[in-house]
Amino acid sequence: MHQDSEHQPWEELESIVDTGDSQKLDVFLEEMDSSEIVWALSRLPEEDQSQILQMLPVEDAAELVEALPESQAVSLFQELPPDRAADILSEMPSNERADLLGTLQEEGAEAILVRMDPEEAYEARQLASYPPDVAGGLMITEFLAYEAHLTVGDVLEDFQAYAEEYSDYDIQYTYVVSEGYILSGVLRLRDLLLAPRTRRIDELMISQPLHVEDATPLHKLGEFFDWHDFLGVPVTDAAGRLLGVVRRHDVEEALADRSENDYLKSQGIVGGEELRTMPLLRRSSRRLSWLSINIVLNMIAASIIAVYQDTLSSVIALAVFLPIISDMSGCSGNQAVAVSMRELSLGLVKPFEVLRVWGKEISVGLINGIVLGLLLGLAAWIWKGNPFLGLVVASAMALNTVVAVSIGGTVPLLLKYINFDPALASGPILTTITDMCGFFFVLSFATMMLAWLI
Amino acid sequence: MHQDSEHQPWEELESIVDTGDSQKLDVFLEEMDSSEIVWALSRLPEEDQSQILQMLPVEDAAELVEALPESQAVSLFQELPPDRAADILSEMPSNERADLLGTLQEEGAEAILVRMDPEEAYEARQLASYPPDVAGGLMITEFLAYEAHLTVGDVLEDFQAYAEEYSDYDIQYTYVVSEGYILSGVLRLRDLLLAPRTRRIDELMISQPLHVEDATPLHKLGEFFDWHDFLGVPVTDAAGRLLGVVRRHDVEEALADRSENDYLKSQGIVGGEELRTMPLLRRSSRRLSWLSINIVLNMIAASIIAVYQDTLSSVIALAVFLPIISDMSGCSGNQAVAVSMRELSLGLVKPFEVLRVWGKEISVGLINGIVLGLLLGLAAWIWKGNPFLGLVVASAMALNTVVAVSIGGTVPLLLKYINFDPALASGPILTTITDMCGFFFVLSFATMMLAWLI
Repeated sequence: MHQDSEHQPWEELESIVDTGDSQKLDVFLEEMDSSEIVWALSRLPEEDQSQILQMLPVEDAAELVEALPESQAVSLFQELPPDRAADILSEMPSNERADLLGTLQEEGAEAILVRMDPEEAYEARQLASYPPDVAGGLMITEFLAYEAHLTVGDVLEDFQAYAEEYSDYDIQYTYVVSEGYILSGVLRLRDLLLAPRTRRIDELMISQPLHVEDATPLHKLGEFFDWHDFLGVPVTDAAGRLLGVVRRHDVEEALADRSENDYLKSQGIVGGEELRTMPLLRRSSRRLSWLSINIVLNMIAASIIAVYQDTLSSVIALAVFLPIISDMSGCSGNQAVAVSMRELSLGLVKPFEVLRVWGKEISVGLINGIVLGLLLGLAAWIWKGNPFLGLVVASAMALNTVVAVSIGGTVPLLLKYINFDPALASGPILTTITDMCGFFFVLSFATMMLAWLI
Repeated sequence: MHQDSEHQPWEELESIVDTGDSQKLDVFLEEMDSSEIVWALSRLPEEDQSQILQMLPVEDAAELVEALPESQAVSLFQELPPDRAADILSEMPSNERADLLGTLQEEGAEAILVRMDPEEAYEARQLASYPPDVAGGLMITEFLAYEAHLTVGDVLEDFQAYAEEYSDYDIQYTYVVSEGYILSGVLRLRDLLLAPRTRRIDELMISQPLHVEDATPLHKLGEFFDWHDFLGVPVTDAAGRLLGVVRRHDVEEALADRSENDYLKSQGIVGGEELRTMPLLRRSSRRLSWLSINIVLNMIAASIIAVYQDTLSSVIALAVFLPIISDMSGCSGNQAVAVSMRELSLGLVKPFEVLRVWGKEISVGLINGIVLGLLLGLAAWIWKGNPFLGLVVASAMALNTVVAVSIGGTVPLLLKYINFDPALASGPILTTITDMCGFFFVLSFATMMLAWLI
């Protein structure tokens, strides 16, 4: 569909890489959008991608790595010489550095860590030891902290002395610590602007500042920033020692990633995101792991049909309605799953409120079940001219819609309650149960009314 | 399942509202997490919720409104006296204020606007006139801009004079404008800190600063912040006049909302998010609008089965496999849809690259189709002891998996190409086509091999 007769951007990129002219590369990339670069890069063989990271100035290479999807960045880093990888990592914010190192295979990460500045490497190991979705795993360690007895002048002098180093920091607040690096206050940059230089910072600071502990989970951090209009919050250990800062935008990014992942999992993409640039066998086997569970569940559900073979061969028209009822119940149930997932993530419903959700769903299920049942029943009646066929189909559809929304609404809560991932398991549980019930309703009702159906 | 014998938080909240003691209310809410408050609030009748917004100090009420899901905030605002609503809105950031006013029904919004400060109301009307997913709709208008000829001292004096007003601002940068409010530079707060007071700000500023135009769409803003480590970017009109500032975290929030909405739409929750606190008929009719399209599509697909009734009544076992093939093809196709949606949102694939995606999907489809086909075929063979039944089922499953991933992978791109929402339409298109093909493959293959199947 693309009629462009010129070279594609990745072809041009490839030919520049072949010349080895790093200045030409820099100029070429300058002129492209970030998304264009990521797109073009994903079309190149990995050696060429790694070549580009080696040709670019190290700061630009770091920026490029930050813009890539994580799975792509990781496989690229496995191609890079460890020295170069270490240099690029040094230019990245501490939290992204730790994420990348944490995802690399152990040997790969070690080879890079030993080539990093020892202090940075120590820090990266510390950060990588946290789970990625708690404050410790999300925090950055680039922050400024000053002892409580210093003055505004001392702080400003330090700013000027280390201006270049700090220019990489994303300074919104500076922190005040007492002995043992215990967090005792926070200073806003604008307070420093307005105060006389001789003033002690502990007179100026907001004391007993809000903070979170390193084990605070992501959703709590999300709530924190919903509630407080801050750009960052200090992270301490249980003893109150200042460890780092979690920035609002890192929390928001992590929450967005989680919801993306929930979507992917609910559609059967498990074990991390899939990009079409990944090797074929990895892609197909990951998808297959999910599909093979589903096909077994499907066979179990369909075995209900086998039980009623005699009814089915007497009223062959029923075979037309079985897939419709199975599909439609899946649709109704998935709507309820989606609302429950959304309400859970907004904190509007708690996992133990199963009965409340069930009550709310049953009424929706009754209304929609009756409407869908009437539609389908009418179609059956008109098609075969038999009102009893319509009755069987209509009542099965109506009843199974109630079942589907009941299961769909409550299963995510129950899974959450037992600490199992609702995004992953809600779908298969839902469709297996609703299929079984749907087939059972149609075929058992038909068996009971067989005399009027033939 | 909740064994707590004490009062639920919303019961306590209700009893405090009944006393009308606003101090007690303030203390009670102080002690709760934000998510607890939102949760408890959603359990109260709307009159009580509106009562709470009237009892709280206006700043706290504004914070509470910001923490609520938008649909809840909107329906609550329709309950509030317009005077109070106007007061609360004045305390909110300009972009959230405009969003809320934009979503309120016209009369409701007018009643509030006429009670607001005229300048604020004018601004809110301007902002509400932008679509919510462009820079103009996302920007805030609380920013500081100074004329180019001023000095650092002038700026710092202005800071001190208006310290209280500005303390509500989220000041990261100040902007420098030339005649006609044309953006000419940006000043970082820390540059002001380090410069002598007599210095002119246009000597200090970063000139020709990066900026976006008011019509810049959300995904472009996302790319901008991926690429540039800024906390905000100035927004200008086509003539270069400074209009506002888009903050990184507002962009990230909007992107997260969009992906949430895509998930909801893909599961059949259309027309905005559904909360279980909404009226029953609104919830059921919205869901039904989606379901009734699907049931019609389902009936069309199932009509293929009706065509082959004779084959089906000769080999009734086939009826067991029809729903399995329909379900499994849906699963395989949805995996491909999810990967395409993800790659589209990451910019890793362009809508015109249909052929490339198709090529990538066919190979996955072949591998997985063969595996799933073998599984299902083997089950059929063992169950009925007829290898030809196995062959029919296996080849239909394999072939239809290829069809499903082809449709699933490419339909989102094609929909995007014609500017139709892929989250909304990919699912129904996918399942209708794969159901028809699946039923056709099973039943036509069986018809051809009928002699060996009976």
